[in-house]
Amino acid sequence: MKILVANLGSTSFKYRLYDLGDPHEPMLARGAVDRIGASKSKVSYSSGKGKAEDEVPVADHGEAVRLCLQQLTDPTLGVISSAEEVAAIGFKAVHAKGISGVRRVDDRLLSAMEEFNDVTPAHNPPYVRAMRMLADRFPEMPLVAAFETGFHATIPDRNRRYAVPNDWATDHGVLRWGFHGASHRYIAERSAQVLNRPGLRVISCHLGGSSSLCAIKDGKSVATSMGMSPQSGLFHNNRVGDFDPFALPAVLRATGMSLEQALDVLATKSGLLGICGKNDLRDVEQAADAGDSNAQLALEMFVSSIRHYLGAYLVELGDTDAIIFTAGIGENSPRIRAMVCQDLGAFGILLNSELNETGSGERKISSADSKVEVWVMPTNEEIIVARQARDLLSGTL
Amino acid sequence: MKILVANLGSTSFKYRLYDLGDPHEPMLARGAVDRIGASKSKVSYSSGKGKAEDEVPVADHGEAVRLCLQQLTDPTLGVISSAEEVAAIGFKAVHAKGISGVRRVDDRLLSAMEEFNDVTPAHNPPYVRAMRMLADRFPEMPLVAAFETGFHATIPDRNRRYAVPNDWATDHGVLRWGFHGASHRYIAERSAQVLNRPGLRVISCHLGGSSSLCAIKDGKSVATSMGMSPQSGLFHNNRVGDFDPFALPAVLRATGMSLEQALDVLATKSGLLGICGKNDLRDVEQAADAGDSNAQLALEMFVSSIRHYLGAYLVELGDTDAIIFTAGIGENSPRIRAMVCQDLGAFGILLNSELNETGSGERKISSADSKVEVWVMPTNEEIIVARQARDLLSGTL
Repeated sequence: MKILVANLGSTSFKYRLYDLGDPHEPMLARGAVDRIGASKSKVSYSSGKGKAEDEVPVADHGEAVRLCLQQLTDPTLGVISSAEEVAAIGFKAVHAKGISGVRRVDDRLLSAMEEFNDVTPAHNPPYVRAMRMLADRFPEMPLVAAFETGFHATIPDRNRRYAVPNDWATDHGVLRWGFHGASHRYIAERSAQVLNRPGLRVISCHLGGSSSLCAIKDGKSVATSMGMSPQSGLFHNNRVGDFDPFALPAVLRATGMSLEQALDVLATKSGLLGICGKNDLRDVEQAADAGDSNAQLALEMFVSSIRHYLGAYLVELGDTDAIIFTAGIGENSPRIRAMVCQDLGAFGILLNSELNETGSGERKISSADSKVEVWVMPTNEEIIVARQARDLLSGTL
Repeated sequence: MKILVANLGSTSFKYRLYDLGDPHEPMLARGAVDRIGASKSKVSYSSGKGKAEDEVPVADHGEAVRLCLQQLTDPTLGVISSAEEVAAIGFKAVHAKGISGVRRVDDRLLSAMEEFNDVTPAHNPPYVRAMRMLADRFPEMPLVAAFETGFHATIPDRNRRYAVPNDWATDHGVLRWGFHGASHRYIAERSAQVLNRPGLRVISCHLGGSSSLCAIKDGKSVATSMGMSPQSGLFHNNRVGDFDPFALPAVLRATGMSLEQALDVLATKSGLLGICGKNDLRDVEQAADAGDSNAQLALEMFVSSIRHYLGAYLVELGDTDAIIFTAGIGENSPRIRAMVCQDLGAFGILLNSELNETGSGERKISSADSKVEVWVMPTNEEIIVARQARDLLSGTL
């Protein structure tokens, strides 16, 4: 069964085609369309047969998918003979009111996502718009939404509930939903393969443009740092992380902003960007090295918030087998990994600085006498979405 | 020097008179006026010379203080010969915009407190009203506000800042201020006396009607669970604790509430009360024992949130000497203490269940082989306020 996994941005469309009929689950092809709607969109494609790049106008996401299917069936570089071979398009959807897990995309699902547009302002609006268009244009193509919240359904109520009146939870869905579910699920499954111990307890540190930690016990999420919205928990490139809502009235009064405007600041002008004016951690590291004190503060705050949740999850798990770094920053910043693990010898966590600073790809970076293993594992959210779409279609979910 | 320490409720006034000229800092007398403004107020007083109770109408807080000074100078039960012996009235003030530490009460201070009325809706409005009245009625009496935020001024920026634009911090005071400063300061000073080690690292667990944890290193606060407002951090008897502001728009839309109304729910109908309908932990424990599943959930959530911050602070401190339980729940609930310390042997934390369940007052409750000592220490916020008021008046602060 071949599954196309789509990653939708407001003006971008990226995809990977997987063959899940093959036990090795190969990625057959991948491609991207950037600057959708501009006079010239950048289009790229690669498969085992070669690569192609082009600049053509692509009006909307429907057009982008049509182009994608054309590339996949191209006589020279294509990998399938007809679009019907694509069993489904899988989407890493973020959040919907009253819906989680893996679901076929229909009007009810899209409406439920729209109800949480302002809970996930960066994610839901462009996703819903593009998914609705694809459902219209490709009515025969099964569309499958794998919600980022799904992996966290196993979190016990003691960690999942806010201390609000019960009807806020039951009627309005105010819970610690958690996100980055595909990534944390990948780490849960992969670490179980690699470490191969019964009842494995790992702390998955997904650090990237947005970041979250997840405590995983025997393959199941038991706590995660993001709560009701993907703005919470650790802070993100431009999103605030944990914040006290009782700061809002004083800020609204002093600035004249509306609640919507203040939340927009918290969702788009905060995080690394708010602290030091840069929203890419690589730029923040460079600026800190050049003596920018706000950039240095941003690094220290980021590490401090990671260590906050790390400590909480060491206690939550009781006896942690491994700490795993993944995603853009987690995989590529030895500095952040070293700062996170600094002076944790009392907790049985000892980094090998040479392994941390050299090498690449999946590897152990703790020293031989570290009780808790520390790993870098490149995440693969797309293969998780592909498998979930397959399992839904084949009725084995 | 004799200092009167006042505890102001919206319809209550409690006080203690300390003699700080005596090296043992004795409490000379204490008293309370309840149901201020009702047709009959309950008045009580006790000193080394005896006790008195009465029911008389007490119109307002000014009248209550007048009554207090009358009691203190009473020929039979009084402990001072004239009201002039009272060098100052000290108040445990909560929060003011741009002001922390220990300060004389003046118009500027009261206005700064009013600016944060909606950050601390349960505390500031009644305090400001009563303090303003006392300043009017007793113009000769020095009034000293010891802010609950003061002890936390030493928290490093990496733990103090939210990831918001800088001007939210600098212009609008949006920081993790922390509260319960008098209590955590008492624990810092008392634990330094009792454990008597250089660079002592303790986690102070103030658990009561409202609750917070504080990581203390060498006598200084380095992190605390409450942030901008005393509604945040651990949840409280009727206040929400940590909450994601991005839940608000969905709740406002679904319920028709205004932001102010929703924040009022979070400040007065949440916490233990929101989860299980009871806001006194003793009632919650009883209901849980009787099989009430919401009460059981409330206990588990409370313990889970305490352990969350406990883990974070174990990592923050690196090598913790002691965990100290204080305040109403911390001092009096062996069950909560046992649940908090359960299965923490991997962290060198071993409770002695007999010591935990029996005995009273200040005592060690960890087992002999526990690397981290666990203590119960009754807090004494009033003596801290009295000392701070003395130090301000004597210019030694």
